[in-house]
Amino acid sequence: MTATNAAAEGSGALRDELDAINARITKQASHVRELKKAGTTSADEIAAAVDALKDLKIESESMRKRMEVLDPTAQFNRRVFDELILRKMFIVPSFEIHGGVKGLFDLGPPACAVKAAMVDVWRKHFVLAESMLEMECTCLTPEVVLKTSGHVDRFTDLMVKDPASGECFRADKLLEDAIDELIDSNPDMPASEREGHMRVQIQADAFSPAELDDKLVEYGCKAPSGEPYGPSFPFNLMFKTSIGPEGTAVGYLRPETAQGLFVNFRRLLDANAQKMPFAAAQIGLGFRNEIAPRSGLLRVREFCMGEIEHFVNPDDKSHPNFPSVASKELVLFGRDDQLGSGKTKSIAIGEAVSSGIVNNETLGYFMARTQLFMERIGMDPNRLRFRQHLTTEMAHYACDCWDLEIQSSYGWVECVGHADRACYDLDVHSKATKTPMLATLKLDEAREVEVAKLKFDRKALGKTFMADQRLVSGALEALAENWADFEPIANALEKEGKTTVDGFEITKEMVTWKKTSKKVHEIKFTPSVIEPSFGMGRILYSLLEHSFYQRDADEQRCVMRFKPAVAPQKCAVLPISSGEEVNAVVDEIAAELMESDLATRVDKSTASLGRRYSRADEVGVPFAVTVDFDTLADGTVTLRERDSTVQIRLPKSDVTRVVFDFVHGRFTWEEATAKYLVVQVKED
Amino acid sequence: MTATNAAAEGSGALRDELDAINARITKQASHVRELKKAGTTSADEIAAAVDALKDLKIESESMRKRMEVLDPTAQFNRRVFDELILRKMFIVPSFEIHGGVKGLFDLGPPACAVKAAMVDVWRKHFVLAESMLEMECTCLTPEVVLKTSGHVDRFTDLMVKDPASGECFRADKLLEDAIDELIDSNPDMPASEREGHMRVQIQADAFSPAELDDKLVEYGCKAPSGEPYGPSFPFNLMFKTSIGPEGTAVGYLRPETAQGLFVNFRRLLDANAQKMPFAAAQIGLGFRNEIAPRSGLLRVREFCMGEIEHFVNPDDKSHPNFPSVASKELVLFGRDDQLGSGKTKSIAIGEAVSSGIVNNETLGYFMARTQLFMERIGMDPNRLRFRQHLTTEMAHYACDCWDLEIQSSYGWVECVGHADRACYDLDVHSKATKTPMLATLKLDEAREVEVAKLKFDRKALGKTFMADQRLVSGALEALAENWADFEPIANALEKEGKTTVDGFEITKEMVTWKKTSKKVHEIKFTPSVIEPSFGMGRILYSLLEHSFYQRDADEQRCVMRFKPAVAPQKCAVLPISSGEEVNAVVDEIAAELMESDLATRVDKSTASLGRRYSRADEVGVPFAVTVDFDTLADGTVTLRERDSTVQIRLPKSDVTRVVFDFVHGRFTWEEATAKYLVVQVKED
Repeated sequence: MTATNAAAEGSGALRDELDAINARITKQASHVRELKKAGTTSADEIAAAVDALKDLKIESESMRKRMEVLDPTAQFNRRVFDELILRKMFIVPSFEIHGGVKGLFDLGPPACAVKAAMVDVWRKHFVLAESMLEMECTCLTPEVVLKTSGHVDRFTDLMVKDPASGECFRADKLLEDAIDELIDSNPDMPASEREGHMRVQIQADAFSPAELDDKLVEYGCKAPSGEPYGPSFPFNLMFKTSIGPEGTAVGYLRPETAQGLFVNFRRLLDANAQKMPFAAAQIGLGFRNEIAPRSGLLRVREFCMGEIEHFVNPDDKSHPNFPSVASKELVLFGRDDQLGSGKTKSIAIGEAVSSGIVNNETLGYFMARTQLFMERIGMDPNRLRFRQHLTTEMAHYACDCWDLEIQSSYGWVECVGHADRACYDLDVHSKATKTPMLATLKLDEAREVEVAKLKFDRKALGKTFMADQRLVSGALEALAENWADFEPIANALEKEGKTTVDGFEITKEMVTWKKTSKKVHEIKFTPSVIEPSFGMGRILYSLLEHSFYQRDADEQRCVMRFKPAVAPQKCAVLPISSGEEVNAVVDEIAAELMESDLATRVDKSTASLGRRYSRADEVGVPFAVTVDFDTLADGTVTLRERDSTVQIRLPKSDVTRVVFDFVHGRFTWEEATAKYLVVQVKED
Repeated sequence: MTATNAAAEGSGALRDELDAINARITKQASHVRELKKAGTTSADEIAAAVDALKDLKIESESMRKRMEVLDPTAQFNRRVFDELILRKMFIVPSFEIHGGVKGLFDLGPPACAVKAAMVDVWRKHFVLAESMLEMECTCLTPEVVLKTSGHVDRFTDLMVKDPASGECFRADKLLEDAIDELIDSNPDMPASEREGHMRVQIQADAFSPAELDDKLVEYGCKAPSGEPYGPSFPFNLMFKTSIGPEGTAVGYLRPETAQGLFVNFRRLLDANAQKMPFAAAQIGLGFRNEIAPRSGLLRVREFCMGEIEHFVNPDDKSHPNFPSVASKELVLFGRDDQLGSGKTKSIAIGEAVSSGIVNNETLGYFMARTQLFMERIGMDPNRLRFRQHLTTEMAHYACDCWDLEIQSSYGWVECVGHADRACYDLDVHSKATKTPMLATLKLDEAREVEVAKLKFDRKALGKTFMADQRLVSGALEALAENWADFEPIANALEKEGKTTVDGFEITKEMVTWKKTSKKVHEIKFTPSVIEPSFGMGRILYSLLEHSFYQRDADEQRCVMRFKPAVAPQKCAVLPISSGEEVNAVVDEIAAELMESDLATRVDKSTASLGRRYSRADEVGVPFAVTVDFDTLADGTVTLRERDSTVQIRLPKSDVTRVVFDFVHGRFTWEEATAKYLVVQVKED
């Protein structure tokens, strides 16, 4: 999804006006062409018609600009924001003095603190609140694991090269850009034609290499050298290395944290005393060797993820806590709407699940919890939406996927995936390692089931399979638990005299069976996995954008409106003068705040108070205490709230408790202004 | 340092007895040899003498065992501990079902929670308390950075191969093991000879390849195949990969987090408003491709580090907060003591610095703060010591290094390095990138300094150096700031007519100068770096060992004595029966605890209360609330403290506040037993 699509959504009356003008442009352009073709028209007449066409285009352009103003992302001043982010060392390019590396960024002190607070909220909101089993697995991953998961073969992007320079490009992004450009440079393109192009754009990452090559030609994409691109081919995005001194063991840096949890499933189930459903979680790094990193911080090569794997019975995806979120309204952008109206819908998650828009309760539950998390850390709720994956985007085994997208100046960006991955992951690891990965459902009432009762000829088995014979008999016993599973084996053995199970060739002599029935008190099943996967870096970047504003539209007065709980520093303490007595009180208050683990910013510089408030605003410090001459007389100080710039006067001994309670959500600014004297102070 | 050395320290009366017996063994052995040599002694006589020798050896062995009992590490039951760690999923081998990878381990839920709490304390104790600038830099690092830091050339271990199998081994470890074995199998070795071997052992990782090859031969080391090892050669321990799709840009996984901070020095200094001294900090992953990972969790290939880089004026390494720790006693194992008495000293850090044992205040300050951190998270203070690096262990540029070693069943293990690295790191990056990395000291009084006043012939410079001319003149101007620095250049130009500055050849025509003096109000300098570097994984493992004990020496009743602040779960809530009313109260209390972000363990299983307490003990839950029938009558519950197993009775509405205050260190168990009724309950 790109910025163009985002802008295309800003609709309403202005949109209609613009459509009307664009229709007039089309008409006038056709008129000019006719005049020219006619050959009989005077040059002046043509010039006048061309001038009229130009005026219409200028009007259309100014209309587009007005539309952008209504769109909040358009008000965003990226130049000022980027300058602030770098100057205040929120985020800086990694290894800058050595020339840097594309797609690698460091978090500086304020962003590092915001991220730590964000991760802390995440852990409380998800892990702690639901007693999830948190793990920390390694980034280094042996090849066999990622071969099993499919990443070695399929974790690829299609790449093309400029044949002249050897420079590499992501093929789908080239196509998306070409379509953006085509639409942008043809404002008078009929809506239906534009929609056609946008549909191609939406599917850009789902084309086969051959299809993509055709599209690149169709849209006239040329390499920077001017030559056509070479054919597109899959490039694996994993960083490869070798583990151990021999140099023979291939390893990769994990592209996601999930595999570590899947391979630990049996131990996790034990740790949960075999109870289902349950969730495991992990916060950690992921790595992707992006072909052409761009979009600043949104497409990077090393990133922090938070992943939850909720293991559930595939026949019962209800969630015990679903009622607690059922009435929560979410903005959904369903599959049909993406290909149809292009409009989102606001709908309670309970209704979305019961009407089948969202596949099941557990998936819906996590979507609602994600929305609540975003609101809790201070994301703008008006710039969040859940976009459903198109059928072409989903893996064949997936039941349903919804991405939480956050709107920023880069458009709508996928920040949290919510995928029902069925039992794919456990299945592949179970098969590859010959390790059963099953959970048990205890039945309330015993149930009669048809089974096969097996009798093995251990001698025959042993002779053929030697050490593997237990594996073979185990695999057959597992199938025999359910006659429906065993029936094809039985048929094959009877008809052909042999068959293959888990790669072993079984012959008739090895086993005999009897179809029978038995009472079972429990059922074994491979759990389905519902996976919310958070891109912490993207969330952090989006939060920085959502938090940024300019006071009174003044470029010199930037503010980050962080909530107290996520603000990198909680309180500034400023002396009104450089007097020793005043400074002593500043140190005393700061020490007390620090002792309560409240990160504190002391600014004793000689700049004006207003300037020092502004500096604190720039890193989003929510409160500022000022020690003045009255403090020395009566022990009171002023406390300023960042966004309103309103100040209250309170005893200095109250400061730590009040700020602590603000940060921990136990006291609000409204309550504070009711309790303490509000003082008016002009800032400049 | 190995387990043998640790045991060698258990001294005193028992040691003297053992020495006496060993002397008798030596005497008897020599007697046996003489009898055999004589050729005239009867077989019975020889047999009797040999039996007497055997008896003496048995007595010696039992004496050694008794000595080990006095040594706390010897009481440690590793079998039971290892079984608990795995069963409760504290730490598990990574990718176990796929066969695992040596040197990679995952943290399971309880260890993951302990680690998060530990990191949280670290952040508060170091970063927050001193307003350090925390960063998060990338693990992926381009080659140029690690080439500059010296890691590409020198971050190596000496490796030997078994010529038959190609198997790789770390040469210094083979030597250490051979010496351990030699000493162990010769209990009657004279003390002076043993000390000689141990001195070789201590220097094992400082030998050159040729020296090490000689020692391996000298100590008779043979490869598993029986052949001698091949010659030792340096093996680089960094994991190598390639960044970007072209495959041409070499990158490594960082072996330490420090470089990310060094290359950001200029931005950090700006972020600190140019004020010195200041510290930057980073918590993150490091990677080392260990040749032969062993010692379980202590030598792994991927690990969490916490590093602090404190930047300070090399001429003034005092620390403003030093007085706050000066009286703190630390156990120091200085260089001289390691090579001499072999005994540690307990000494106040203030005295250690003033007497010159520890090089400077800042280094001493961090050593004391590290000790306090260890005590705060619950490490046994009797099993901590600071070992100074031998001169042979230190890099040539380092001023002084002290490792905090923690004693575990693997012996004394280096867990935190404290190194004064002088200005090496900033210097190399500054030179490699031609980026000045200087701090400024404002002088209280202006100072007269001798300088060179330069006049450039810009034409001559431009002709020779073109675009680089500013670099050349800048380098000369920097030297000219201090006549002492410029004098050699001046002399060379006068005598030879040319000289080399920063790789540029300067000739006489390019510059003229005048020795003069000027008043300066500030001095520019390259800061020194004092670096405390924490191996979080090793600290975590040591904490697990220090926390483990068996109640009443019963293998079935293991306990982890985590402090409430780092315990993975803070409180267990147990119903005395499975009645609905009782369970409802359990849920109510658990929900209230969770709402205060206190990780809670609900155990409604049908096991006996005693059994359920034991299960909570095994993961170190410090408190357990039991809801019984009295609760339904009067609203009170019991609260059990893990280590004493003492219980108090309190209103259920007090539970959350009391546990919260325990965890946050605002209320002690002693205070609780004074305030509430103590009840005696027999557990089984």
